Amino acid sequence: MEREELFKMLTVRNEKKILLVVLDGLGGIPFKDGKTELEAANTPNLDALAKESSCGLSIPVREGITPGSGPAHLAIFGYDPIKYEIGRGILEALGVGMDVTKRDVAVRGNFATIENGIITDRRAGRIPTEVNRQLIKEISDRLKKIDDVEIILKSGREHRFVLILRGDGLSDEVSDGDPEKEGLPQKLPQPLAPQAGKTAEIASRFIKEVEKILKDKHPANTVLLRGFSKYPDIPSMEEIFKVKPAAIATYPMYRGLAKLVGMDILDTGESLQDEVNSLKENWGKYDFFYLHVKKTDSYGEDGNFENKVKVIEEFDAHLPQILALKPDVLVITGDHSTPSKMKSHSWHPVPFLLKSSYCFNDDLKAFTERECRKGSLGVFYAQEGMALMLANALRLKKFGA
Amino acid sequence: MEREELFKMLTVRNEKKILLVVLDGLGGIPFKDGKTELEAANTPNLDALAKESSCGLSIPVREGITPGSGPAHLAIFGYDPIKYEIGRGILEALGVGMDVTKRDVAVRGNFATIENGIITDRRAGRIPTEVNRQLIKEISDRLKKIDDVEIILKSGREHRFVLILRGDGLSDEVSDGDPEKEGLPQKLPQPLAPQAGKTAEIASRFIKEVEKILKDKHPANTVLLRGFSKYPDIPSMEEIFKVKPAAIATYPMYRGLAKLVGMDILDTGESLQDEVNSLKENWGKYDFFYLHVKKTDSYGEDGNFENKVKVIEEFDAHLPQILALKPDVLVITGDHSTPSKMKSHSWHPVPFLLKSSYCFNDDLKAFTERECRKGSLGVFYAQEGMALMLANALRLKKFGA
Repeated sequence: MEREELFKMLTVRNEKKILLVVLDGLGGIPFKDGKTELEAANTPNLDALAKESSCGLSIPVREGITPGSGPAHLAIFGYDPIKYEIGRGILEALGVGMDVTKRDVAVRGNFATIENGIITDRRAGRIPTEVNRQLIKEISDRLKKIDDVEIILKSGREHRFVLILRGDGLSDEVSDGDPEKEGLPQKLPQPLAPQAGKTAEIASRFIKEVEKILKDKHPANTVLLRGFSKYPDIPSMEEIFKVKPAAIATYPMYRGLAKLVGMDILDTGESLQDEVNSLKENWGKYDFFYLHVKKTDSYGEDGNFENKVKVIEEFDAHLPQILALKPDVLVITGDHSTPSKMKSHSWHPVPFLLKSSYCFNDDLKAFTERECRKGSLGVFYAQEGMALMLANALRLKKFGA
Repeated sequence: MEREELFKMLTVRNEKKILLVVLDGLGGIPFKDGKTELEAANTPNLDALAKESSCGLSIPVREGITPGSGPAHLAIFGYDPIKYEIGRGILEALGVGMDVTKRDVAVRGNFATIENGIITDRRAGRIPTEVNRQLIKEISDRLKKIDDVEIILKSGREHRFVLILRGDGLSDEVSDGDPEKEGLPQKLPQPLAPQAGKTAEIASRFIKEVEKILKDKHPANTVLLRGFSKYPDIPSMEEIFKVKPAAIATYPMYRGLAKLVGMDILDTGESLQDEVNSLKENWGKYDFFYLHVKKTDSYGEDGNFENKVKVIEEFDAHLPQILALKPDVLVITGDHSTPSKMKSHSWHPVPFLLKSSYCFNDDLKAFTERECRKGSLGVFYAQEGMALMLANALRLKKFGA
C-alpha cells in the first residue's frame, strides 16, 4: 500500500493537540571552540526538556542530500519530499507573499540588459530594489492582460521579480527564456509539450511588450523568465493526517509552504513573542500547530555563529510559555541544518525532540546534535516525524489485526 | 530488484540452525518506578547474553505505526508487512484454530439480536461461550452446505464465531453484513466486484437460513458477518529464504500465522517448559525455529506490569536450556511493544538481541529497551531482522562481484 493511503486508512481525529516547532536551519557542525551553535548556546529549558523527552536525529530528505526550504518543509509536514515538486516560480511567488491559485503559472523574472539583441548583463547591474519597484509599477499599469491571460507582477530584491500568468489552459511545460550566459541572444520561452503552446506564446509576447515599455530604461531594458511552474497538487494535511492545522510564521515563504499543505495561516507579528502570542490566542481553535522561527537559518547563512546562538537562546527563554500550553505532543526540531561554518544549508541530520505521555525519557544531558544521536528515536527520515507525532497523540489506529 | 527476488538470488542452504524467539509484545515504556517491564525484571541470563550479543531496536512496520499481530509477525518472518494483507476473517479463523485452504473465504461472525427487522443488540447480550457452542452445533448439524458451498463453523468466545465458506468460485470482495450500529435494519452482504456475486448470495442465504434455525433463541436470533477474506497468497519461507522452518506456539493464531508462511507446526503443550521440550525434541529436524511466548503480550494488554515482568523472568529461567542447544544464530525479540502503561499494542521499537559467531559483543549492561538502543544493530525495520539472521548463519551469498 502506498504510504499516504496507509495514513488515510489509519489516522483518526481526537482532542489531542500537536505542536511542531521548527527552528529553521537549526542543525550545525563543530565550529567555534569545536562546538555547534546548539552546543555553544546556553539553553537550560531545552536541556531540561531533552532529559525527559525522546530524541533523535532526522535526515531531511536522504543521506547526504541538502534540501531547499521547499522539500525540507514538505518532509517535516509528513510528505515524501521527492514525490512532490514545488517549482522554482511557485516558491519565489510564495516567498514574496503572492497569492497563487491552481489556474496560475508562476515564473521567476530578472531584469536584464540587452544590446543589439545580445544579453550583456543577466542582472541589469543589480539595480536597486527601489528602481525595480518603479519599473514593476510602470509595467503593471500598462500591461494588465495579454489576450485572456491576467498579468500579475511583484518585485523581489534588486533585479528579481515574480510574474504570475493567470488564465485557463496554461501549462508549466515551457522552457526557460534565459540564455544562461551573457553574450548570447535573448531566448524566448518554448513549449515543451503540445498543451504548452499558449503559455509559451503569452510569455514571449510578455517579453516583447515589456521590452517596448523598458526601451529607454537601460540597463534594465529587458527581462529573463525562468522556472515556469504550476501550483503543486499536494493533498492536504487534513486529507491525509486528519488534523486541523494552523501555521505561525513571520516570513511569507513559510506561510506559503504551509498553505500548500492546507494549513490556516494565523496573523502574527515580527518577534518570537508575537508568534508565541498568536499560538496562545489560537490554542483552542486547532489541533496541529506549526510554529516557524526563521533567524536561526538567516544567521547560519550569514556565517554569524554568535547570532545564531543568540536566536537559539532567545527561543529557549520563550520555551516555558510554550510548555505552559501543555501540548499533548511537542516536537522541537529544524527543517535542515545551516551550519554557520558552511554559510549554507547542509545535509547534516537535525536534532529532533518529542515530548508526550508515551515517550521514553532519554535522560540526555542537553539538546544538541551529539546528544540527540544517543536518543531513543535513533536516526530517521524527517517525513516519518509526522507519524511519530500522530502516534504519540494516539491518532493512528492499529494496522492490521 | 524487488526485495524478495534479492533474497531468492542470494540465499543458500547449509547446516546452520537459526532460532528466533518471539516474546509477544515484549517492548514497554517507562511505567512503575519509571521502569519498563524489561528494566524491572530480574534477568541474569538475558543480561549476560546481551553482554556478548549484538543488540538493537526493531521497528515493527514503520515509525509510529502500531501493528496488529498479523503484520507484526509477517515482519519478523522477513516479509514486507505492508505488502501482504491478512484479512480479519482469516486471522480470526487462525485464532480459533481452523484449517484454512486457498479455496475458502473466512468470515467473522457475531450472534446478534433482531427485533422486527431491526438489529437491537450487535452482540446478543454477550451470550456465554457455552451457549454459543450449543448454537453453533445446532446450526452446523442442520446447515452443512448451501448449493455446492460447504459451511464450516467454529465458536469463539461469548458472541463470536468464525464461518468458513469452502467451494469454487468464491471471492472476498463482499461488503460486511453488519449495520455497524444498533437500531438499524439487518444488512445483507453485497458483492463489491462482478466475481463476488456467488459469495454474497451464499452468505445472504446463510444469514436467512440461520435466522430460521435461531428464531426461538432470542437474544441470539440472528448473525452479523464481517471481514470476508481469502487465504493470502504469501510465498513460503522455504521459497524465499531457503530454510526449513518449524513453529512452536501455544496459541492457535500464531500457529496459523506460521503456517501462512509455510512453517511446520510442532506439537507442544501449554507451558514454556513444554515449548522448550518441543524445541529439544525437534532440534535435529529443522534449520529454522520460531518459538513464541504469548503471555508477555496478554499481561501487557491487561495493564498487569507485575505479571508481564514475571513472564520475562520465567523466560530468563528457561534460557540456559535453550542456549544448551547451541543454535548457530539465536535471536530474542518481540513482534511489537505492548506497554502495560498503555494496555495495548504500540508503535515503540522492540529490543532485539542476536548471538552468533560473527556478531559484535556490544557489552551492554542488560537486555532492555534503553540498553538495546546503544547496540551495534542500531534501529532498523523488523523485516530486516531475517536478513541479519540469515547473514549470521552464512546463508546469504555475496551480492555482486
